Order: sequence, then C-alpha cells, then structure tokens
Amino acid sequence: MTALKGVFAASLTRLAADGAPDIAASARHNRWLLDTGCDGLAVLGTNGEANSFSLDERLRLLDGLAEAGLPFARLMPGTGCSAISDTVALTRRAVQLGAAGVLALPPFYYKKVSDDGLFAAYAETIERVGDGRLRVYLYHFPQMSAVPLSHELIERLIVRYPTTVVGIKDSSGDLANMTAMVARFPGFAVFAGADDLLLPVLRAGGAGCITGCANILAPVLQKIYRLWRGPEVEAVHALACAVRTVCSTRQLTSSLKAILARHSGEAEWNRLRPPLLPLADAETDALVADLAATGYRLPVVP
Amino acid sequence: MTALKGVFAASLTRLAADGAPDIAASARHNRWLLDTGCDGLAVLGTNGEANSFSLDERLRLLDGLAEAGLPFARLMPGTGCSAISDTVALTRRAVQLGAAGVLALPPFYYKKVSDDGLFAAYAETIERVGDGRLRVYLYHFPQMSAVPLSHELIERLIVRYPTTVVGIKDSSGDLANMTAMVARFPGFAVFAGADDLLLPVLRAGGAGCITGCANILAPVLQKIYRLWRGPEVEAVHALACAVRTVCSTRQLTSSLKAILARHSGEAEWNRLRPPLLPLADAETDALVADLAATGYRLPVVP
Repeated sequence: MTALKGVFAASLTRLAADGAPDIAASARHNRWLLDTGCDGLAVLGTNGEANSFSLDERLRLLDGLAEAGLPFARLMPGTGCSAISDTVALTRRAVQLGAAGVLALPPFYYKKVSDDGLFAAYAETIERVGDGRLRVYLYHFPQMSAVPLSHELIERLIVRYPTTVVGIKDSSGDLANMTAMVARFPGFAVFAGADDLLLPVLRAGGAGCITGCANILAPVLQKIYRLWRGPEVEAVHALACAVRTVCSTRQLTSSLKAILARHSGEAEWNRLRPPLLPLADAETDALVADLAATGYRLPVVP
Repeated sequence: MTALKGVFAASLTRLAADGAPDIAASARHNRWLLDTGCDGLAVLGTNGEANSFSLDERLRLLDGLAEAGLPFARLMPGTGCSAISDTVALTRRAVQLGAAGVLALPPFYYKKVSDDGLFAAYAETIERVGDGRLRVYLYHFPQMSAVPLSHELIERLIVRYPTTVVGIKDSSGDLANMTAMVARFPGFAVFAGADDLLLPVLRAGGAGCITGCANILAPVLQKIYRLWRGPEVEAVHALACAVRTVCSTRQLTSSLKAILARHSGEAEWNRLRPPLLPLADAETDALVADLAATGYRLPVVP
C-alpha cells in the first residue's frame, strides 16, 4: 500500500443560481486542475465549502463527479462532519466510488474534547465503514476546526489502523509540527496545507501539499514538487509564496473564486454559501492587481 | 408577540444501543423536566448532542417528540447547523410542529467570518423558511462554536426582522455581555446559558436561563425564577452555583448523563456519541459524592 503524494488542490465548488453545487461546472474545474498540474484533488474540503453543504448535497456532488468521469483514484474527498453518522455515510460513498483516500476532519462542534473521544470518533467511523479499501488522511486545522490532533492521538490511530490511517493534511502553518510528524511516523504521508510550506515539507521528507491556492497555482506547485532538489526551485518557491500572500490577505475562498471569475469571464464563480461572501468589485480589482504584480499568469481555461 | 421566558433545560438526548436517539426515552425525560420545574425545553442543543446527529436523526427526534405529545408551545429546538440547507430544513420542521421558537447557532465551521456573512446566513435562513410564526433565539457560545455574535450583528438582525429575531441564549459566561444586551435591545429576551448567572441576569432584566444543569436542577432554578426579588433567593442561588460547579468540573454532558444514570438506575443514560464519552465508574463515584455533598437531591423519576 502506497500513500498518496504530490500536489493536491483543495478544489473549489461551483454553485448554481439556487446555491446548490453546480456539478458540471465543478467537474470542469476539477478536470482543468488535473490537466494543469495537480496530481490529485481534495474535493469537498474547507475551500470547497463542504461544511456549508448538507449530506445529500455532498453525496450528489461525489456521484456527479464520478458520472463526469473524474478519476477517483486521484481523489481525496473531505468526509469529516460534526456528526459521525454523516461522516460514515460520506466516507462509505467515497470508498464505493473508488476514492484513493478521504480527508477526515475530526467532529468539530465540541471543543476541548479528549484524545480518547477523538480516537473513538475516528475508530467508530473506520469500523462502521468497514471497508479494507479505505485510506484515511487526518485533517489537522486548529485555526478552523478548533479541534487539534495531538501526536499521541495520531500514534494511537496508526498503531490501531496501520493500513488505513496513512497520512495527514496539516493546515496549522506550523512547519515544526509537520517535520516532527515526518520524523515520528515513518511512511506516514504528511501534506502541508500551505503553498509556502510545500518546499520545506518536501525537504523534511513530507508527501506534498493540499492547498486552496492550488486552484489557481497548480503549475507552479507542480514545478516545486518536481524540482525541489535543485537550486532552480528557489525562484519558483518565491513566486508561490508571493501568490499565497496576495490570496490570503482577504478571505481565501472568496479571493480564489474572485480571481477565477475574472480570469474565466464567468461571473458564476462569485457565488459562495454564507457565512462566506463574494468579494466586492473594488476588492477584486485590488486583488487582481496585486496578483498581476507577482508576475504570475494563470493557465488558460478551456 | 411575547418572547419566551423562564427556566429552560438544554435537554439531554437519550441514545439507543445503536447510537441513534432513543425517542421514547428522550420524550419521557423531557416530560419529567416539564413536570419538575422547567418552563420550557431547548431540545437538540449543545447538551442534547445535536451536532453529533445527522439531519434525518434530528428530524426524526422532533417528529417523535411531537407524536409523544410534548407541548411544542414550550419548546425551543436547536436548529443551527454548519450548512444553511440543514438549518433551513430543521427550522422549517420545528415551526411546522408548533415550536415556540428555535435556538439558532450561526454556521460554525468557518471562523473569523464577517458580520456581513453571519447576517447573510441568518437572513437566508429566515427568508427561506418564510413563515411568520418563526421566532429565532440567537445562540452566542464563543467557547464552543468559536463564532461569536457581535452586538452590531444582533442589532442589524433585530432591525431587519423585529418580530422574528426576539431573543438570545448567551453561554459565554460573561454577565457584562448579557446586561449590555438587555440595556441595548429593549424587549429582546436574554437568557443566561449558566445556572450561576440566572439570578444576576434576572436582576438585570433578562428573561431566564437555558442550561444543561437544568436536566437535574430544574426545581432549584424554578425557585430562583419565582423568588428572585426576595432575600430567600440567596440560599437557593448558592445551591445552584454549588451544583453547577460540581457538574462542570468534568465534561458537562457526560457528567449530567452519569448523574441521571445513577439516579434512575438506567445504565442506558451513559451512552454518548463520540467525541463525547461516558465518565468512568470511578469518576462517576466522585461526581455523585461531590453532588451529595452540596445537599441537593434530585426529584424522583417516575
């Protein structure tokens, strides 16, 4: 069993006029990401607004992406909900559709819960899905979930489910936490959740990255992934850092959708589910100017 | 239109052996709460483990409580989910069943969202439910949701929906925040989310309390509610504070279920959905001893 590696986009979800996921447009975007540098896709993650959709909306999106022919062997759908019953249903469907793995937030409503409680939540999910094909990538994002995953918890999960719990996305921004996990858990795939940490995490022995900016930055991140051992990577890394800085000055998901709306000429990109909102036009003007100033040009959309 | 007031329990949800809500046992518990001092019931709140249940599980529980004859005119079900589509479905059902109000968490996955985004989320919910009978009680619980509700946001909602947005549960523990809302928003029902703050919030002009401890402490809280103008309230208040201190030393929901398991002799009380877990026997021994030391005795269960 080999864990996934490389550059993954936490891919954006396109919305229809009624606010439901636009499956066809989302499939087209995901295909473009694979065509322009992504090794894989973490659909239905934080930037995919997953937790703003009902279980049924998420299941329909997964089914629709499968019908559209997206290669699930390169997909790592987000499946972690606040209710285990939802997490089980979504994980089961992802596995049935052939997903290479799932990106699993812990239950995120209750805070300051014990490691025993988080272990029980992950264990119950894995046991109830009960499918040997399941590969779980934990999702550590304390700033958003407010439920951090300790190394002691991760170790217990790896020991109990060695062929199932195979990696983690670390969106804490804390490189020391990532390098410590690489060192402590041999063979465990550690993905950086930030573009500026792709290079350092690769140097530390990590697996790659899963980022929101990969929605616009896939070719650059792929270049870092291929060239990281050579000196020419420094300039590419600097560009990735510059683009990330521009995109994360304002709310990230809103910024990425605004950029893609301008780039593609499709105003529909600017639909988000509350509590996220589209950027105002003036904000987008400033954002697009700042992005142009980095020298980066997005790949052409088909 | 008169807003609700008095003593509400954030009532616990009984679980069946398979982890699903046990509707009959939950209905029995809710009835006991109404019979022993609660003016109303905030079912499916934080202590009701609502966010550990799927939408379908929550809808079935509401339907089941209605079929069991619970008086929905005294109910304030929790309906705020991370996905607006779920919030709308649950709110609509609560209104259809005759609920006096709903207790509405903001969407709680995304953090540091704007007041504009939170306003949009509440507004979309209210507009899509589109029912003049809807009464919304906002739910401010920064320690758990990690999405605080500012006074500016509350004011905008009251101004836009004056007959719909009629109150708030404040579980921040910050009495100054509650008294400031009472002063700033005349007629707006401010409920304390903590037993020790019932008396001070009543003195400040608040509406009452909605608490987890009301699951075991309803008679005492009702006595505070009836006697708060008199000197005899001090001793009752001291007892409520003592019981709360005992129950909140360990995880509150687990502690309340452990106490009720011992009190009723029904071991089934000790079922919780991960990430919450039952207390260990030794912890329960200590808890029950600490509770006995306060001098408080629970009302007899039927």
